[in-house]
Amino acid sequence: MNSFGIVFRVSVFGESHGRVTGVIIDGCPPGIAIKPEDFIPDLRRRKSGSVGTTKRHEEDIPEILSGVFNGFSTGSPMTIITPNKDTNSTGYLEFTNIPRPSHSDYTANIKYSGFGDMRGSGHFSGRITWGLVIAGVIAKKLTSQMEISAELISAGGSDNIESAVKEAIALDDTIGGIIECKVKNPPRGIGEPFFYSIESALSQIVFSIPAIKGIEFGSGFASASMRGSEHNDPFIDESGRTATNNAGGINGGITNGNEIVFRVAVKPTSSTGVEQKTFNFKKKKMQILKIEGRHDTCIALRMPVIIEAATAITIADLIMIDRGIFGVRK
Amino acid sequence: MNSFGIVFRVSVFGESHGRVTGVIIDGCPPGIAIKPEDFIPDLRRRKSGSVGTTKRHEEDIPEILSGVFNGFSTGSPMTIITPNKDTNSTGYLEFTNIPRPSHSDYTANIKYSGFGDMRGSGHFSGRITWGLVIAGVIAKKLTSQMEISAELISAGGSDNIESAVKEAIALDDTIGGIIECKVKNPPRGIGEPFFYSIESALSQIVFSIPAIKGIEFGSGFASASMRGSEHNDPFIDESGRTATNNAGGINGGITNGNEIVFRVAVKPTSSTGVEQKTFNFKKKKMQILKIEGRHDTCIALRMPVIIEAATAITIADLIMIDRGIFGVRK
Amino acid sequence: MNSFGIVFRVSVFGESHGRVTGVIIDGCPPGIAIKPEDFIPDLRRRKSGSVGTTKRHEEDIPEILSGVFNGFSTGSPMTIITPNKDTNSTGYLEFTNIPRPSHSDYTANIKYSGFGDMRGSGHFSGRITWGLVIAGVIAKKLTSQMEISAELISAGGSDNIESAVKEAIALDDTIGGIIECKVKNPPRGIGEPFFYSIESALSQIVFSIPAIKGIEFGSGFASASMRGSEHNDPFIDESGRTATNNAGGINGGITNGNEIVFRVAVKPTSSTGVEQKTFNFKKKKMQILKIEGRHDTCIALRMPVIIEAATAITIADLIMIDRGIFGVRK
Amino acid sequence: MNSFGIVFRVSVFGESHGRVTGVIIDGCPPGIAIKPEDFIPDLRRRKSGSVGTTKRHEEDIPEILSGVFNGFSTGSPMTIITPNKDTNSTGYLEFTNIPRPSHSDYTANIKYSGFGDMRGSGHFSGRITWGLVIAGVIAKKLTSQMEISAELISAGGSDNIESAVKEAIALDDTIGGIIECKVKNPPRGIGEPFFYSIESALSQIVFSIPAIKGIEFGSGFASASMRGSEHNDPFIDESGRTATNNAGGINGGITNGNEIVFRVAVKPTSSTGVEQKTFNFKKKKMQILKIEGRHDTCIALRMPVIIEAATAITIADLIMIDRGIFGVRK
Repeated sequence: MNSFGIVFRVSVFGESHGRVTGVIIDGCPPGIAIKPEDFIPDLRRRKSGSVGTTKRHEEDIPEILSGVFNGFSTGSPMTIITPNKDTNSTGYLEFTNIPRPSHSDYTANIKYSGFGDMRGSGHFSGRITWGLVIAGVIAKKLTSQMEISAELISAGGSDNIESAVKEAIALDDTIGGIIECKVKNPPRGIGEPFFYSIESALSQIVFSIPAIKGIEFGSGFASASMRGSEHNDPFIDESGRTATNNAGGINGGITNGNEIVFRVAVKPTSSTGVEQKTFNFKKKKMQILKIEGRHDTCIALRMPVIIEAATAITIADLIMIDRGIFGVRK
Repeated sequence: MNSFGIVFRVSVFGESHGRVTGVIIDGCPPGIAIKPEDFIPDLRRRKSGSVGTTKRHEEDIPEILSGVFNGFSTGSPMTIITPNKDTNSTGYLEFTNIPRPSHSDYTANIKYSGFGDMRGSGHFSGRITWGLVIAGVIAKKLTSQMEISAELISAGGSDNIESAVKEAIALDDTIGGIIECKVKNPPRGIGEPFFYSIESALSQIVFSIPAIKGIEFGSGFASASMRGSEHNDPFIDESGRTATNNAGGINGGITNGNEIVFRVAVKPTSSTGVEQKTFNFKKKKMQILKIEGRHDTCIALRMPVIIEAATAITIADLIMIDRGIFGVRK
Repeated sequence: MNSFGIVFRVSVFGESHGRVTGVIIDGCPPGIAIKPEDFIPDLRRRKSGSVGTTKRHEEDIPEILSGVFNGFSTGSPMTIITPNKDTNSTGYLEFTNIPRPSHSDYTANIKYSGFGDMRGSGHFSGRITWGLVIAGVIAKKLTSQMEISAELISAGGSDNIESAVKEAIALDDTIGGIIECKVKNPPRGIGEPFFYSIESALSQIVFSIPAIKGIEFGSGFASASMRGSEHNDPFIDESGRTATNNAGGINGGITNGNEIVFRVAVKPTSSTGVEQKTFNFKKKKMQILKIEGRHDTCIALRMPVIIEAATAITIADLIMIDRGIFGVRK
Repeated sequence: MNSFGIVFRVSVFGESHGRVTGVIIDGCPPGIAIKPEDFIPDLRRRKSGSVGTTKRHEEDIPEILSGVFNGFSTGSPMTIITPNKDTNSTGYLEFTNIPRPSHSDYTANIKYSGFGDMRGSGHFSGRITWGLVIAGVIAKKLTSQMEISAELISAGGSDNIESAVKEAIALDDTIGGIIECKVKNPPRGIGEPFFYSIESALSQIVFSIPAIKGIEFGSGFASASMRGSEHNDPFIDESGRTATNNAGGINGGITNGNEIVFRVAVKPTSSTGVEQKTFNFKKKKMQILKIEGRHDTCIALRMPVIIEAATAITIADLIMIDRGIFGVRK
């Protein structure tokens, strides 16, 4: 189940400390100009390197294995990989017996009967989002008439993100955050009832990203406390513009042409430096666990570009489905 | 895109004021005892009829068209319908020109070029969730070793739900609410990384339900304000039990055996009785709109059983995928 | 797995002697004119009634349950059913113990652990093709710029079909046949490498039709005996026309604009009137079986319209996928 | 549409003269022992090198990029590639203007608007079947209780294959062939009505293989000339064994436990050395084309192992679907 999309399909593969991480993009039209440099800005945003992000430093250079010829997409499946180089797999084996709280150590062990490559959390690692960002760069080219941008709007419950991060670092602890994504100038009429509404499709891909714990569209959870008379968005002109945008640009699962707005909640990185209790499944008793090594104080810092990628991929797919059924819209 | 699921597949059809609403369930194993009465309790919960719910009263009697023989599922696709009888389609046509704020009138008109059957909101109506509840009854039979229960935990921002509803009725306005769903005793190891994690699959189906604006798992949006050291759930015994359950029973997209917990935000019913402004697309000017007729003051009152159905359907599918790949788990 | 198609999706349901047989068509664009009479000519061709076809006579009147409004498709899932009325279920139960040779009695019993509704062969009956013909009528409307026509070109090994049928009737035996399907003026460029080539997609749907034992495209099996120099089709003008058409209009899984040509082999109806041997699984010994009642002497007589339907459905889906990725082709 | 399968999924990528050809296998259970040497026998059969096969000699060494750890499958997507080294791309560009008869030059140019990487026929090359063979080796491990074997039973219309090939070489021409595939000891009850019958699934994957023009199951096209009384296969014992096997081991799309038997027709390699006519789309006139270079005289010689792979992949998927729905069968 490593694939997303119906016409524009993205498949990811790789493990954190395996040879590579990669992605296949199927259903990309031919003739899209693609240069290796095109990926650099978004990969750099994902890598970050700023205060509060991991010290693991991969070069992340994308190698295009198929689907691009003479600088243009061919229409055949596009495979892009990058090697994993800066890996340090010391200590991961013991996590099978002493699972780190809120990591996938325990569930992966159950599911894969101990055969999973759990070095660096393996296929469950945030490393796998590298492929999403690559596919997102392609998808953004297919949705260039709109503007997709996500940003971290709070961390650790505070909108003073920098100081929240510093405080967490000082405590050797970790914090979560909230990312808001906006799509300006989206096409109207995109989204397929019943089970592939734009919210359905977006949330499916977004929740595949590690550490996401919630998503809300428009006024989201706040809408549950509102009255209909204050929540409803009055249409105000022929273009379908609305005076407010509590709907987040979506009515009935379909875009209404107003800005698409959604927010996602990112939990604090599970690998905190603070001592924790966990159960030792070998010794069959509780023990103290101290996680050493490099980790992101606030993984949410690196996520906006991943959320943008997920959004672009989803919209590209929904546009293709819509165009397939209805033809090109004016 | 009216189908959900990979092995256990549910397809819905029908329009609010069309001849029927219905559902097809494919991938149901043979030999499951199914009597018409089995559907009554959940259908009754969906219909509600209590204060704050619509006065539209459909008998909702399920007619089994295929897939059941001599009281047992056959293994062939199960088709179940119910006629729409208590329909009153007066006035819906004008909503093409004078779209109701936050309804699907405008987007459906754009998407379907005016050909949609928008009487009673057509295929966008909450009526379509009838089929989900039917499929949910079947799915609950397939997941009977666990207990799936959802309840409305707040309405209009208040946990005194009854009085919040009465107040809204007095104002001829509408309110939203928050529903919490719990799955006790879920199987461990269910959920498929990367794109069909349990959160991905659940949110895909949940957001197809009209009026849902947000979903969060475990501590959800609150986790964004937490530290890792307080958010992490320590394992405490051999069964994988955790001391806290901020994860909502899910690590790495896979169930860890603890209770699955998630909440959804339901917006206030768009059909408020309060006068609203909207744009008249025919006369090309703003106008006042007063929505007459019966509607739910708080659609969230009727939703817990729909959320349970969506959950049971998802878990049934995930169990089948897991069993297909891994065989029967002990 | 009762669904076919990626964007234009057809799902069938029903059992031969159950309440109904039916079909759901998803992904049909809105605004297609659909009248109940539109289905009559193709349904009549399927029903046949001519010499050599079954005496079961269903009225076959299609009831449109959803997806059509005011005479036009709405864009929502289209559900169409017909009741099964002329059923006689006497004797089918014993086929569980005394399976009819080459019928699905034995395999259905194994697969569905005896819970299948096998009256009239249940979901395995040719009756299920009713829904394909219905979907084919819709798909033909979507592909009206081309001409899809299938005909029976031989029966029982002879191209004098009428006399072959009469001879078989005289022997109370059954015969098979070969159907040839041609698509004149197909769009160029349709078909998706690698796994959804036009041959892949067509053969997938065609082999779901009961009694089909083979399919070949263009020169088909004969090509295995040919030399490249005689098999290759020289292009002869700018439109891509070829001097010969051994390829059956397909190169590399993609249409080249020449006529699409394929043939299918239909086995003789398994329900022959001639006495046969079979194993009695209850008495655990061989026995003589004499199948009574009405059956088709040559089921292939009724199949051309079903093959046309399968072809139209496939091409409609492939056009939508192609248009989704590439946009509208000139 | 580069993926096949519902639970056990195979995706292929690469171009003939691109950097690599490769495959992703998703849905493989963990704990399957996988060594690089395991692939050698089947890859060698595919490569052949015997008289009548191409002189292109790739080392074909599989590089496992993901999904295998410490010699066992992990349960995560398995990505395996091999570099393309022995490429000679001279002359391919002109095939855009002067398309080789019965090759994909013309259709690929139409479909991909000239952007396809058509060196060595690109994504349309038989080279892409490398990935199928790799996935087939894995699938054979999952179906080891049965025996899947395919062989070339005729070439150029003769069962004296060696002399037919030599004769064709002498003429600098090419020939086709017929391959028969048998599955001994298959599981009973595998195959999903309606659209994922074993014939439907098998033919879908088989027709994705370049050069296949026909497929038939059991008595296949010959059944069209048979009487029911001679075609039907009498059951003869409690195990479901039949006296004859005209059904090819399949009734109603489901395996009956007898040997699965099917044959495929392979056309003569399109790249014949004999001079041909074709249309020059640039000069807009007919011309003589002489194809130089290395090619397979009889591509069918290399195909049995590919057909086996396609069969194993299909059966693995059908077993997983069946097990997902029904649980493990005794």
